[in-house]
Amino acid sequence: MIVRKGREEDATVVLELIRELAVYEKEPEAVIVTEDQLREDGFGADPLYGLFVAEVDSKVVGISLYYYRYSTWKGKCLYLEDLIVTEAHRGKGLGKALFEATLNQAKEDNCTKMNWQVLDWNTPAIGFYTSYNAELDGAWLNGSIELR
Amino acid sequence: MIVRKGREEDATVVLELIRELAVYEKEPEAVIVTEDQLREDGFGADPLYGLFVAEVDSKVVGISLYYYRYSTWKGKCLYLEDLIVTEAHRGKGLGKALFEATLNQAKEDNCTKMNWQVLDWNTPAIGFYTSYNAELDGAWLNGSIELR
Repeated sequence: MIVRKGREEDATVVLELIRELAVYEKEPEAVIVTEDQLREDGFGADPLYGLFVAEVDSKVVGISLYYYRYSTWKGKCLYLEDLIVTEAHRGKGLGKALFEATLNQAKEDNCTKMNWQVLDWNTPAIGFYTSYNAELDGAWLNGSIELR
Repeated sequence: MIVRKGREEDATVVLELIRELAVYEKEPEAVIVTEDQLREDGFGADPLYGLFVAEVDSKVVGISLYYYRYSTWKGKCLYLEDLIVTEAHRGKGLGKALFEATLNQAKEDNCTKMNWQVLDWNTPAIGFYTSYNAELDGAWLNGSIELR
């Protein structure tokens, strides 16, 4: 197993993993990004996100996708948008390796915090994050307005 | 009343407003950003956030502070980090003007969504967002690890 920085050619499997997570999170119809868009947005002149991938036998089976946010309380933070390991490869430490690579990236980039979100019924993920002494705060609602 | 893009010299009042909101949200000790940092992070070579301010009688009394996020479901989104109007000037439509300026910015920037968070006990803010037919989703926990 290796963890490395993502590359443009990983976009195909990245989209497969994003879709797998959306099914698990009970919103299979919610994914409207395309492979081309993931390529352009992550690897163009002005990247909108960063990516780590985990490989087993030279095949990508997990990803961590992140970007930077700006907290008015804490300054620059790293936001972990998605941590995904395909179902057949769970329980082998891949999620841990990806999570820790991302945590190290946040430290290198002088972020004061790493943040993410987890669904309140996702007990295995909550257990995983709790093992890092992470704070998990349920006092906030996510607001959104669709523009398209 | 006018709404305009924020400028470097607004940093002093921006920090005052951030602190006022932190007191309202019952976390007065949480603000560690400084005025200098706000200046550098918002108006340096590689800005980490964007800013609108609302002025009454040439004095800044409200702000909207935002940045871009990358949703693996929706692509580029605008995240409204803070919408603040100082207490003495609430109820005059300043929040509405700032919110709508930010919504227009999101549309101009081809974002698919505008997102934000609101505390589940902040009834006035929830009422405000509901008037826009915004979705408010309470199923997620905010995870975080402090790095400093």
